[in-house]
Amino acid sequence: METDKHNVTTYSLLENIDTPDDLKRLSVDQLPKVCQDLRDFLITNVSQNPGHFASSMGAIELTVALHYVFNTPYDRIVWDVGHQAYAHKLLTGRREKFSTNRKLGGISGFPNPAESPYDTFSAGHASNSISAALGMAVATSLNDEEPARHVVAVIGDASISGGLAFEGLNNAANTNSNILIILNDNDMSIDRNVGSLHSYLAHITTSKAYNNFRYKTYKFLKKLHLVSERQRGPIMRFNNSIKSLIGRQQNIFEGLNIRYFGPIDGHDIRRLVRVLKDIKDMQGPRILHLKTVKGKGYEPAELNPQAWHAPGRFVPETGEVISGKSSAPKFQEVFGQTLLQLAEMDKRVVGVTAAMSSGTSMNILQSKMPERVFDVGISEGHAVTFAGGMATDGLRPFVAIYSSFLQRAYDNIINDTSIQHLPVTLCIDRAGLVGEDGVTHHGLFDIAYLRPIPGMVISAPRNASTLRNLMYTSLKNAKGPFAIRYPRGASDADPSGEPFKCLEIGRGEQLSAGTDVAVLSVGPIADRVAAAIAKAKADGISVAHYDMIFVKPVDEEILKTVAESGMSVITVEDASRIGGLGSAVAEWLKENGYDNRLVSMGIEDNFVSHGKVSELYELCHLDSESIYKTIKMLNKN
Amino acid sequence: METDKHNVTTYSLLENIDTPDDLKRLSVDQLPKVCQDLRDFLITNVSQNPGHFASSMGAIELTVALHYVFNTPYDRIVWDVGHQAYAHKLLTGRREKFSTNRKLGGISGFPNPAESPYDTFSAGHASNSISAALGMAVATSLNDEEPARHVVAVIGDASISGGLAFEGLNNAANTNSNILIILNDNDMSIDRNVGSLHSYLAHITTSKAYNNFRYKTYKFLKKLHLVSERQRGPIMRFNNSIKSLIGRQQNIFEGLNIRYFGPIDGHDIRRLVRVLKDIKDMQGPRILHLKTVKGKGYEPAELNPQAWHAPGRFVPETGEVISGKSSAPKFQEVFGQTLLQLAEMDKRVVGVTAAMSSGTSMNILQSKMPERVFDVGISEGHAVTFAGGMATDGLRPFVAIYSSFLQRAYDNIINDTSIQHLPVTLCIDRAGLVGEDGVTHHGLFDIAYLRPIPGMVISAPRNASTLRNLMYTSLKNAKGPFAIRYPRGASDADPSGEPFKCLEIGRGEQLSAGTDVAVLSVGPIADRVAAAIAKAKADGISVAHYDMIFVKPVDEEILKTVAESGMSVITVEDASRIGGLGSAVAEWLKENGYDNRLVSMGIEDNFVSHGKVSELYELCHLDSESIYKTIKMLNKN
Repeated sequence: METDKHNVTTYSLLENIDTPDDLKRLSVDQLPKVCQDLRDFLITNVSQNPGHFASSMGAIELTVALHYVFNTPYDRIVWDVGHQAYAHKLLTGRREKFSTNRKLGGISGFPNPAESPYDTFSAGHASNSISAALGMAVATSLNDEEPARHVVAVIGDASISGGLAFEGLNNAANTNSNILIILNDNDMSIDRNVGSLHSYLAHITTSKAYNNFRYKTYKFLKKLHLVSERQRGPIMRFNNSIKSLIGRQQNIFEGLNIRYFGPIDGHDIRRLVRVLKDIKDMQGPRILHLKTVKGKGYEPAELNPQAWHAPGRFVPETGEVISGKSSAPKFQEVFGQTLLQLAEMDKRVVGVTAAMSSGTSMNILQSKMPERVFDVGISEGHAVTFAGGMATDGLRPFVAIYSSFLQRAYDNIINDTSIQHLPVTLCIDRAGLVGEDGVTHHGLFDIAYLRPIPGMVISAPRNASTLRNLMYTSLKNAKGPFAIRYPRGASDADPSGEPFKCLEIGRGEQLSAGTDVAVLSVGPIADRVAAAIAKAKADGISVAHYDMIFVKPVDEEILKTVAESGMSVITVEDASRIGGLGSAVAEWLKENGYDNRLVSMGIEDNFVSHGKVSELYELCHLDSESIYKTIKMLNKN
Repeated sequence: METDKHNVTTYSLLENIDTPDDLKRLSVDQLPKVCQDLRDFLITNVSQNPGHFASSMGAIELTVALHYVFNTPYDRIVWDVGHQAYAHKLLTGRREKFSTNRKLGGISGFPNPAESPYDTFSAGHASNSISAALGMAVATSLNDEEPARHVVAVIGDASISGGLAFEGLNNAANTNSNILIILNDNDMSIDRNVGSLHSYLAHITTSKAYNNFRYKTYKFLKKLHLVSERQRGPIMRFNNSIKSLIGRQQNIFEGLNIRYFGPIDGHDIRRLVRVLKDIKDMQGPRILHLKTVKGKGYEPAELNPQAWHAPGRFVPETGEVISGKSSAPKFQEVFGQTLLQLAEMDKRVVGVTAAMSSGTSMNILQSKMPERVFDVGISEGHAVTFAGGMATDGLRPFVAIYSSFLQRAYDNIINDTSIQHLPVTLCIDRAGLVGEDGVTHHGLFDIAYLRPIPGMVISAPRNASTLRNLMYTSLKNAKGPFAIRYPRGASDADPSGEPFKCLEIGRGEQLSAGTDVAVLSVGPIADRVAAAIAKAKADGISVAHYDMIFVKPVDEEILKTVAESGMSVITVEDASRIGGLGSAVAEWLKENGYDNRLVSMGIEDNFVSHGKVSELYELCHLDSESIYKTIKMLNKN
């Protein structure tokens, strides 16, 4: 970082790069300085405007090399999970806007095709890059594009362990497509990586000598024009002969018929550029394995990459994280503490998560009883089926997965828990609007996709105490899968000292009595409803408020009471309006022949972007003012 | 097959086996005869009462050996996809009931825990066995069961290519669980297997000598008490030394730290029993790779295993399949022919399926333009994301997947097509009740799970011509994902000579006018509605009938017309009533303040078992008589 005479930070090379063409004008020897500028820029900016930090720091040389060597955006780079793509945004015309990263109306924290032609594919959920890139590679081949488009997928070592990535790998060789897969291996997912593929990748360095040898021989032969790029068969046979000659172990990727190069140091920019140029025009699927350091170039992040995945605001000079901690515990902490308490009282209780151990606070149980927590890595489908197997033989698994990621396990929920009536508790974290992570991460569909599943219990606590008691209730009384959805962030209180209480499944609770309008809500949005009701009361409107707690089975007694009162009804939920609580109430009223007016408030039929949670609530007309207005409107009718 | 003096087929050993204990009383030398009895029994019975044939024929020795060696049901056998499990059913007390297989009230065609304690886990959808077995293995270990339960997953070579299976494998080694994975490798899925893992498995025989050597050495050392079962580490090191000693290639599974044995002949029952006894008590995850022949022991099936996957009725002596072909083409054929026509007129059109090429009739295009069809094997998630990548670069993929299997691709539909507004046509085959395949295969949730996704178009043709025009419409006018759901089986006519017609997206069609009751239906159930309306007409009731065609966007003009008429409304759909068309109409009526009476007819909130489609429609009160009764009932009100 340079500081000019006016004491303003400057980035002498970066500040002149508005597109990758500007980057290409530089010499290779200038690239290390570009990387340094990018690091300085990220440290300065992400410390002020929080976002994902350590992953992008580790991918800087890779990003510079890719845009230097490839003809983007004509050539396609598909980033797997956007955590690593900040430098990519900075090099592709979004440096000036970077201060708006993750803010309402600003640029997205993930690659987003609607934002830039350089962002080729949406990359909020892990493991999709190889499949998407393969589709693009097939398209370029079927379209006979001239020059042939290069397609590159950049995938992390955690993402590549997801089943979707394996499906992509398994098909990449089969279609013999022209795709370069770059494995950005920093030995980490959000949490430390797990799984045997991960051990394998750590071990793969043993074949370095062989790979170096093969790579050099290949280059040598190419230089002598002894091999042509189009002659893949002979080259492979040639490789196999070397292999048997020097007796090296077979590589997993080569077992899948994908040519493997690496591992090489992902921070050696000169070498990276060289290697990418060399293998760029090869035909067929290739994998380049880079070893990188998460948080590279910022010591606090290198030392503790997990904490620096998305650190919040920090002081650049010291690495001190500026805590915005509230006094009430997060729902996550309540979940984590409760799970520990349940595990202490019942030895059947186990925890399962999919690379979200710290995010969900399952690490609280993990640190006390590591043998009873299973972090299966990025593999949500497996997590649920695995839990189904455990429940078959008497365990009581609590599976904590973010709502939007649980979409990955939909079929597993149906076949591997519900059909078999297996008591698996689905702890659906990050339900509702998640804020800055945006469109791919909001948990808005869970109620709608779970509701048609027979036997499914769907609940949502409005506060910490109810979350705790719902977990207890599921342990005591679940006869099949039991879903508990709760948002990211602060709850109301620490309930850990309270005695556990079994709730009646399918029974809601009246929070306030009223005679003019009835509001049925589910989840912590009850607070916004309560504020709206208080305001309406000042206007002389008497509003009844029920916390349904359960969307399925829905409390028919409450519905009957409300319906027979003749009051107009408002339903409020922080989930898709289509298929949610509002639909359940509409169905019930129609089915039972009640003509009460009904207004259902929830997320409308549009994708929601990023911003602060409170801003998004306003944007979606789910703030207390909007609820208040709806009450007023219905009271007039 | 023996024929006694009264000319009745007998199975001299099989007929005395009611439980695996009876099997265990036999000597190993008698087992080949048990296998022969099982084959004869299956040929005789499946030829009369159709079901899955070739897979089970190929798994007979394996099944006998498993129940002979393991202490079932205390030991757990988890079958991956029930196709292969008929012999298992016959050996575990269901021989007498086998004539009820797949029939209403009879036994299920797939393993079903509700049916027998020997069926440990539901196995209708591929690739879940390793994850489920791993859960059971963890449970037996945490429960400190004595004796330790053995857990065996039996998975086919097609199923193991699914991402879920890979996630299971990747975690199996990591948890160091006591699980035996048997890879039943018959070189086939329902269609011929694809993917590079498949090529790898074919290639793996090259290491046979090594594996034999290692296995014999291991046994030898064990006999001399030089290795203990608990000393896994030393054994692995020992194995690795042999490996480097004899310079064999590394095995993919061993790369994942799972001990590999095989491949061995899966039809050599004596050897199978011996090997299973040998490796049964080993610790840690192991994989036993069997080479089997799909259809083994019945020549017509061995010669054409694909056709004999589920052949229908056949003449045992000749292998002649008794065709029950109707004159009207199946919806599948209409889809297949239309796709070919569209591909001929528009070079952007490509087909994608996931091991369902013949089932969906995508093989029609495949045989004409193989380069434009991508059968990606059992990997539904990849299929959709791959299609998203293709659509990104200008292709127009038609993805044909069965409704219940598409549940596997839910997150991919949201993130990799919808959020990005990519024009991918989802051709949802086997929508509605599928009949004999039963609970895991009915396509009942698709409307409910797709409806909350912004921008999604959801349509369902009532006949062949509409299917054809919907496909054309999606090609011409889709602005994002476009779902077309249609059932298995006969349509009404062959529309291939008709000119293509663009339908207006979100516009339904009035099929009959009426003044007493209005019926809104979607899909071919319109025929049952029409029959009911005809019957009601004879009673003097005038019924309006609308085919909505689209569930999303729903035709608000029709809804307005019907609502303003004041008529009572019935919605009819062959999908989950919760979240479907009925919900859409209830939501709309409530939202717009209409008080029309509404009865929504669809699949109630219960899992539906197996039987003939017509029987299931009756059972679910969706036959024309039930619709007629509902019309009568509403007419009285």
